[in-house]
Amino acid sequence: MKILDLFNLTEQQQTKLAGLGDVQVIEPQDLNDNNSKEIDAIYGWDAHAEEVLTASPKLKFIQSNSAGVDYMPLSEFQKKGIILANVSGIHAEPISETVIAYVLSFARGIVTTAAARPDKRWVGDQVRMQNYTLKNRTAVIFGTGHIGEAIAEKLQFFGTRTVGVSRHGNPVAHFDEVVTDDQGTDRAAKADFVINIMPLTPATKHFFNKEFFDEMINHPVFINVGRGPSVDTQALIDALDQYKLAGAGLDVFESEPLEKSSPLWEMDNVILTPHISGGFQEYGAEAFDILYKNLASFIQTGEVAVNKVDLSAGY
Amino acid sequence: MKILDLFNLTEQQQTKLAGLGDVQVIEPQDLNDNNSKEIDAIYGWDAHAEEVLTASPKLKFIQSNSAGVDYMPLSEFQKKGIILANVSGIHAEPISETVIAYVLSFARGIVTTAAARPDKRWVGDQVRMQNYTLKNRTAVIFGTGHIGEAIAEKLQFFGTRTVGVSRHGNPVAHFDEVVTDDQGTDRAAKADFVINIMPLTPATKHFFNKEFFDEMINHPVFINVGRGPSVDTQALIDALDQYKLAGAGLDVFESEPLEKSSPLWEMDNVILTPHISGGFQEYGAEAFDILYKNLASFIQTGEVAVNKVDLSAGY
Repeated sequence: MKILDLFNLTEQQQTKLAGLGDVQVIEPQDLNDNNSKEIDAIYGWDAHAEEVLTASPKLKFIQSNSAGVDYMPLSEFQKKGIILANVSGIHAEPISETVIAYVLSFARGIVTTAAARPDKRWVGDQVRMQNYTLKNRTAVIFGTGHIGEAIAEKLQFFGTRTVGVSRHGNPVAHFDEVVTDDQGTDRAAKADFVINIMPLTPATKHFFNKEFFDEMINHPVFINVGRGPSVDTQALIDALDQYKLAGAGLDVFESEPLEKSSPLWEMDNVILTPHISGGFQEYGAEAFDILYKNLASFIQTGEVAVNKVDLSAGY
Repeated sequence: MKILDLFNLTEQQQTKLAGLGDVQVIEPQDLNDNNSKEIDAIYGWDAHAEEVLTASPKLKFIQSNSAGVDYMPLSEFQKKGIILANVSGIHAEPISETVIAYVLSFARGIVTTAAARPDKRWVGDQVRMQNYTLKNRTAVIFGTGHIGEAIAEKLQFFGTRTVGVSRHGNPVAHFDEVVTDDQGTDRAAKADFVINIMPLTPATKHFFNKEFFDEMINHPVFINVGRGPSVDTQALIDALDQYKLAGAGLDVFESEPLEKSSPLWEMDNVILTPHISGGFQEYGAEAFDILYKNLASFIQTGEVAVNKVDLSAGY
């Protein structure tokens, strides 16, 4: 079986895959008209994968190296009977830590005082007693999967009340309460922090729009570590300008890289990071563990062991 | 008994104090040559207090509104038999949250990417996999009192190994290990985070100097939420310039406000806050609780109930 490697497997990792039996790793630079027809599996996704998807009738398993798979042609996978697995789970720790970094940067006056730094203004007396701690604050988290749960666990540790929002509203560990989508806006309106970690689907596109932000009577800090297009960017900018939101922590954007013309770059009450919240030094090793488990299972049974994507739901 | 209020007691708080018996609250604007001779107690500290210290032979109790008391004439208190209490304890939560904000801002790439923001550079690919999580990192915390312990508890929650440094090296909750002062530099050298929360005493002045920073082989992030003069500022700047330190999170400085000529203002790998890490919205209420407890006790027994400062040790 031939697997196309689009995520830079190390030599050691390749050796380990070879131990599964008749596994041949093809690197993208070695892809040609002959072997592209014979690819059984792909690790990762880029233009080479699109080629192979067209060329190889044998392609039956794709292991993505991301949690979200909205950038892949899912309906085509469905038509061709291709099994897709993601690496959902490994992002929970890094992303939840980034969320806590955002939240505390707002709570502890780091964002406010950073705005005075270019002018070297010492604003201690103005800011000191405006600061707050996370105790008895409320966070509403849209999305109660692995990552949402990890965020909730950390916020609960700091004494913050956690409200989850999901399609089903079923209880999830580390949430004081979980409500359904239709109650989410109401809970968010009264919260201190509103955090998005929903996958991008037709149902979540522009979920955070003018109507949503208009409801935010408690001026929460809005955090997006989910997907950029879940947010109507112009509505977000307006909400920040009009102090419907106290601030925003944004790792993802409707178009990436964020265009240089975006006002977000220059807004004092916004923390920006360039879609890095899921990254960490051990990412390659942890993603490989999932690939290895799934490839082993796929070879033996034709099914993956973990993290199979529901191609209709999109995650 | 007359108490001089230098920390803006609310009307409600004044009423509560009056309930202790014959307590009269004097506001600084009402201080005059007559009543300044009759002050028994002071809440807070400023130039008015210095006056009263000279004028009033009756002054026997001072409740500071800070944790550190290094800015007060302690030896004069000692000579005059004045009891001093601080509000140590109420800063543990806010300061430890600020430390976690600093630590995570470095770990999660927020500091690095902020440096690229003025030029609107999208540095995701460069930073994403350099990020790290706090799991299995090591933090060396100089000072194992209330605040040090609260910092250690939070870091342990994130999976960071915590090493405390104290004069005595006695075990303290939430520290994986506590070592004595003489072993501190060696532990710090191999750490990821070096955090100062020691009080300022002759023994801690310029404790973090060139000799200390020269030892830092693991390029830790240095965090100071203790006192500014514990650090030799020029040595710190040099250590940052020479990458002996990966970065610094600084809330306190040798001279405050930080002078506009300080290079620290413009260093990309430094987070600066203007001595605000101990502040939070409920500060006044929590400090009052300590004043109330101590004044009640002082009236009844001539001794305070909590947080008495050892005037020889300086904390």
